[in-house]
Amino acid sequence: MRAGPAFDIASLHAAYQNDLTAADMIGTVFARIAEVNDPGIFIHLVDIGDLLVEAEALGAFDPATKPLWGIPFAVKDNIDVAGMPTTASCPDYAYMPDTDATVVRLLKEAGALVIGKTNLDQFATGLVGVRTPYPVPRNAMDADLVPGGSSSGSAVATAQGIVSFALGTDTAGSGRIPAGLNNIVGMKPSLGALSTSGVIPACRTLDCVSIFALTVDDAWRVFEVAACHDAKDAYSKTIPANGFRQAPPVLTIGVPAKADRLFFGDAVMEAAYDDALRMLTKLGHRLVEVPFGDFYKVANLLYEGAWVAERYAAVKDFFDAKEASFHPVTRGIYGGAKQLSAADAFKGLYGLQALKQKVAQLIASVDLFCVPTAPTHYTRADLEAEPIRENSRLGTYTNFVNLLDMCGIAVPAGIRSDGRPASVTLLTSSGRDGLTASLARDIHASSGLALGATGWLQPKPNDTISVDEAGLIDIAVVGAHLSGMPLNAQLLALDSRFLRKARTSDCYRLYVLPGQKPAKPGLIRVPQATGGQIDVEIWQMTPAAFGQFVAAIPSPLSIGTLFLSDGTSTKGFLVEATAIADATDITHYGGWRTYIAATV
Amino acid sequence: MRAGPAFDIASLHAAYQNDLTAADMIGTVFARIAEVNDPGIFIHLVDIGDLLVEAEALGAFDPATKPLWGIPFAVKDNIDVAGMPTTASCPDYAYMPDTDATVVRLLKEAGALVIGKTNLDQFATGLVGVRTPYPVPRNAMDADLVPGGSSSGSAVATAQGIVSFALGTDTAGSGRIPAGLNNIVGMKPSLGALSTSGVIPACRTLDCVSIFALTVDDAWRVFEVAACHDAKDAYSKTIPANGFRQAPPVLTIGVPAKADRLFFGDAVMEAAYDDALRMLTKLGHRLVEVPFGDFYKVANLLYEGAWVAERYAAVKDFFDAKEASFHPVTRGIYGGAKQLSAADAFKGLYGLQALKQKVAQLIASVDLFCVPTAPTHYTRADLEAEPIRENSRLGTYTNFVNLLDMCGIAVPAGIRSDGRPASVTLLTSSGRDGLTASLARDIHASSGLALGATGWLQPKPNDTISVDEAGLIDIAVVGAHLSGMPLNAQLLALDSRFLRKARTSDCYRLYVLPGQKPAKPGLIRVPQATGGQIDVEIWQMTPAAFGQFVAAIPSPLSIGTLFLSDGTSTKGFLVEATAIADATDITHYGGWRTYIAATV
Repeated sequence: MRAGPAFDIASLHAAYQNDLTAADMIGTVFARIAEVNDPGIFIHLVDIGDLLVEAEALGAFDPATKPLWGIPFAVKDNIDVAGMPTTASCPDYAYMPDTDATVVRLLKEAGALVIGKTNLDQFATGLVGVRTPYPVPRNAMDADLVPGGSSSGSAVATAQGIVSFALGTDTAGSGRIPAGLNNIVGMKPSLGALSTSGVIPACRTLDCVSIFALTVDDAWRVFEVAACHDAKDAYSKTIPANGFRQAPPVLTIGVPAKADRLFFGDAVMEAAYDDALRMLTKLGHRLVEVPFGDFYKVANLLYEGAWVAERYAAVKDFFDAKEASFHPVTRGIYGGAKQLSAADAFKGLYGLQALKQKVAQLIASVDLFCVPTAPTHYTRADLEAEPIRENSRLGTYTNFVNLLDMCGIAVPAGIRSDGRPASVTLLTSSGRDGLTASLARDIHASSGLALGATGWLQPKPNDTISVDEAGLIDIAVVGAHLSGMPLNAQLLALDSRFLRKARTSDCYRLYVLPGQKPAKPGLIRVPQATGGQIDVEIWQMTPAAFGQFVAAIPSPLSIGTLFLSDGTSTKGFLVEATAIADATDITHYGGWRTYIAATV
Repeated sequence: MRAGPAFDIASLHAAYQNDLTAADMIGTVFARIAEVNDPGIFIHLVDIGDLLVEAEALGAFDPATKPLWGIPFAVKDNIDVAGMPTTASCPDYAYMPDTDATVVRLLKEAGALVIGKTNLDQFATGLVGVRTPYPVPRNAMDADLVPGGSSSGSAVATAQGIVSFALGTDTAGSGRIPAGLNNIVGMKPSLGALSTSGVIPACRTLDCVSIFALTVDDAWRVFEVAACHDAKDAYSKTIPANGFRQAPPVLTIGVPAKADRLFFGDAVMEAAYDDALRMLTKLGHRLVEVPFGDFYKVANLLYEGAWVAERYAAVKDFFDAKEASFHPVTRGIYGGAKQLSAADAFKGLYGLQALKQKVAQLIASVDLFCVPTAPTHYTRADLEAEPIRENSRLGTYTNFVNLLDMCGIAVPAGIRSDGRPASVTLLTSSGRDGLTASLARDIHASSGLALGATGWLQPKPNDTISVDEAGLIDIAVVGAHLSGMPLNAQLLALDSRFLRKARTSDCYRLYVLPGQKPAKPGLIRVPQATGGQIDVEIWQMTPAAFGQFVAAIPSPLSIGTLFLSDGTSTKGFLVEATAIADATDITHYGGWRTYIAATV
C-alpha cells in the first residue's frame, strides 16, 4: 500500500478539507517519485520550487470555484505545457512552448498542478511503451510486462499514485491500452470533445486527448473541466459533458460474437473477459453477440493505409531532414508512408466510408459495446522479438474506435488468475461519453479492485455528481418505454436519464391497446380509488429531447399529468378514452412489466 | 412558345387526366427534339419503339401509386441507365451497364420514362459545357452563351421542354450553373440524399445527383421519389424529403457583404442580383450581409488541392493507360493530380476543416443564404480564349457548397436588361432542402418568368405539399392559446410562429372545463362523425420550446395527436375524459373563439 494520502480526487480533497496543505501534497509527490524510482516515467519534471509557488497562488482550499484545487497531474510529452520542453519522445524534435495546450490551460485554471511531462511511444506511434529512446517505464502491476503505450508514462504515473490523473492522447488506443495494462481508468472522449490545440498530431483526423485516472468519477471530473469547444482546433466539437449518472438499469450491451473473439491463445484473458461479462449480466444488463469482422477490417486500415500518411504529414519536414533522429521502429513506419499518393489516401477514405456504412447498423443496434481492452499481455521480451506484430495485436479492440468516431472508456474489471490486470473497454457512438462512464463506474465498483498499483481502496462513489439539472423534465413511462422494453432505446437515444421507479395514485386503469406493434398499454385516469396503483419509471430529459419525444408519440397516446402514489405529479403517458372501448383491462396486474411477464 | 402540352408535371398530368396518352407524349418529345435540332443535347437517345413498350407497361394513368406516371426525363451520361451506354462524354471510356443507377431505378418505378443520355463536360469536370468531344449543346436562352456545365445536356433538354426534368450531378456546381444559365430550376440536394450508386465519380466525397426541372414543385416531386438511403452507396445518408411548404413569413437570409460580391465587371448581373434581393425584402424577409472571404477560400480548395486527386483516383487506371482519350483541358487538370502525395491530400483536408470551423458560425447565423448562381455570363468565344479562368469564375458562388456539406437550389429570378437569364441560388446546411425549396418557389412565382425557353407560363403552385419543417414541431391550439387569447403570450414567449388556421376532423367534441382560470375548453376524441369540426390554430416551435410548453401544461389537459379536416394530423391539445363528466358541451359553436364571442 502506497503510504500517505490517497490521491484519488475525493480522498485528496477530503484530506485538504482536513489539514493537508498543497505543500504537503507536493512533498508526497516527490517522495513517491523517489520511492517508485522509475526513470522511465517522466521526461521532464517540474521544478519543485516553481510548483510550490504555483500551489501558493491557488489561495485557500476552494473546490467550489476550483474543482481541481491542488490536484497533481502529469502530461504526456506530446502536449504542450508552457515552460517545459515538448519532445514527443524524440530529443532532436524538442521545442520549448510558451503557451499551454488548451486542455492544460483549462485544468490549471481549475486548480490542477502539473508535475511533469511523461514518456511515450515516440510521436505517439505504438501501443507498447517501448518505442522510446528514454528508459522504458515499468508496468506498475508487473515489471515483466510492457507498460502499454503510447501514453506509457502517464498511465504508470497514475497507477503508481504519483499523480491523481494524467493526460494522454489516443489515436489507435494510446489512452486505453496503458490504462488496461496498469489497472486504472482510461477515458478516451468523443473526437473533438477535448481540444488538440497544443498537441503534436499523430493522425489529425483521429487524434484526441485522453484522461488516465484512478477512478471513473475522477476521469469524469477532469473531463467536465477539459471539455470545451476551441476555435483553435479545427476538429473541435461541442460535446456536452453530461450524461454521467446512475447507469440505466437494463442496457443492451454488444459483445463480439464468440467466434470473432481474439485472444491469440491467451485462455486466461479469455476467462477474465467471460468473468467481466458475467458481472454485466449480474448487474442486470442484456448481452448481445455482434459479428466483429467488419470492426477488425476497420482496425486494419489504421496501419495499412492512408492514415500512416497522416502521421508522416504531421512531421514531414522534420522526417525528411532528420530521419536518423527517429526510433528505428517508428522510422520504418513513417518511411513507408512517403510513397503513398493522394489517390491512395482517398482510396483509404473510401474504404473506411464503406465499412462505416456497414457497421452503422451494428452500432445502432446496441446501447454500447463491451470489449476486452487488450486481447492478451506481452512482456518486454515478446516485443523485442516481434516489435510490429505484437503491437498490432494489442490494438485488436482499440484501433477501429476513432476511425468510427466512437467514444470509449477502459476500466479495470478484475485481476486474472495469474495476477495480471484484466480490463474491459466500453464503447459507443460519439457524444455519449456519459453513458460509457456511468456503466464503467458500476463495473469498477463491482470489481472491488484497489486503485492502480497503490493498494488504495476505491473511495465511496460520488453521489453528488454534477448533472445540469436546470430545466430537465421528468416523464413517467408506463409501457414499451420501460427499461429493457422495445422502445426504451428511444429514451436512451435522447440521452434521457433513469431517475427512479414509482407508482401512480389509485386513480388510473391500465389497458392493453388493441393492434399495437410493439404491444403497448394505455393508462387512463378514473375517479379516485376506482383504479389501481400502476408501476411506472420516471426518466428525465432536456426540454429539446422531451419536445422531440412528445412529437413522435403516436395516437391514441398523449402526454399529460400523472399523479403518483407519493402525492407528487409528473408528466407521463395517457391514452385517449376512445381507444379503450374494446381494450382489455389489466389494472389488476399493477403494471405492464408484470403483465408481460405473466402472459408471455 | 413551344407548341403542345406543357411538360411541367402538373400540366402534363392534367393533360393525361384529360385525354393525352403516353404515346402522344412520346410523339411530342420526338417532335420537339427535331424542332430544337440541337445535336449537342443527347449522346444517346432511347429507341422510340422500346419507349412505347415501356409506356404501355405503365398501364392506366395512376398518379397516386406512380407519382411520376408518364413523365419524360433525361439522364446525364455519367449516370447508368440499363441498356444505354455510359460515356461520361469520353467515347473511349464507354461501357454498357446492365442495371440502372439507384436514382434512375426509383424514378422509373414511379412511372417516369427515360428519353436519353445527355452531354456533359467530360467526367463532369467543368462548369461550362464546352469540354466535350461531342457538339456543344446550345444555351437554350441565348446561343452565344455557353450552356453551362457540367450537366449541359440535361439543363438544355429541360429548358427546351423536351423533357419534364433531367438528372444531373453536382460536385462543384454542375447542377446549379447550367440551371442558372438556362432559366430553369436546379436542385442540388444535401450530400447523400440521392444515391450515387451507378454514377461515375468525380469527387466521391462531394458528389451528388441533382435535379433540373421547370418548376420548384417539380424538382421537389422528383426529390421525394429519388431521396432514399442506399446501402450500395457508402456516402448515402438518410435525408428526409420533407419541409417543403409555405415558406416561413420572415426568414433571415445571408447575402455576401457588398465589398465581397464578385461580378467580374458585369454590372448587369450585379443589378439583377440587387433586384432579386429587393424581391426578397418585398416578400418580407430580412437580409443580413455576411463576409464571404472564407467561403471563397473554401471554393479555391476545390481545384487547387487534394480534391483534384479524387477526380484522378476515380479513373486512375483508365487515365494512366489512355491519357490521349481525354479532352485536352480535362487531361491537363487530371494530369496535375498525379504528382500529389497522400500527405498533400491530408493537407487539403486539414485546410478545409479549418475553414469549416470558421464559417460554421456564419452558416448558423442565418436561416439560409441567397447568392447569385453565376457571377456573370460567358460566351463560347470567351471560353475558347480562357478555358480555365472563366470556368473557375463561374464557380464563384458554387464551388464551396459541397465542401461545406450544404444543400442548395438555383432558381430563376429574372431576366437581365440584356435579355440574358438571372438566377439566384439559395443555400443552407445539410438536411434543410425543404427550406430552400420553399423560398425558391416564392422567388420563382414572384419573378413571373416563363419556364425555361419554352414560353410556357408557370402553373399554379401545388397546394398539397408535404408538411414538416427542419425539426420544427407543429401544435394545434384550441382555446386560451389562440391568437389574442389570454395564454397566447406563452406561445410568443417561446418564439413560436403562427402557421395557419385549420379545423379538426369531425371526431371531436369541445367542452367548457369547469373551474378554470382563465376559462379553457377541453377537446376530446369521439367516434368518427359523432363530433364536430372544431376551429384550431396551428403554431410551430422548436423541439426545446415545445418541450417546455408541454411540460407546463396542467392537468387535465394533455398533448396528443389531433386529426384535421384536411386528412393530416398534428400534435395538439386534448383533455382527459374524467374532466368532462360535468362539463358543458359546446361542440355546436364550432370553436372556442365563436363560443367566447357568443357568450361574453
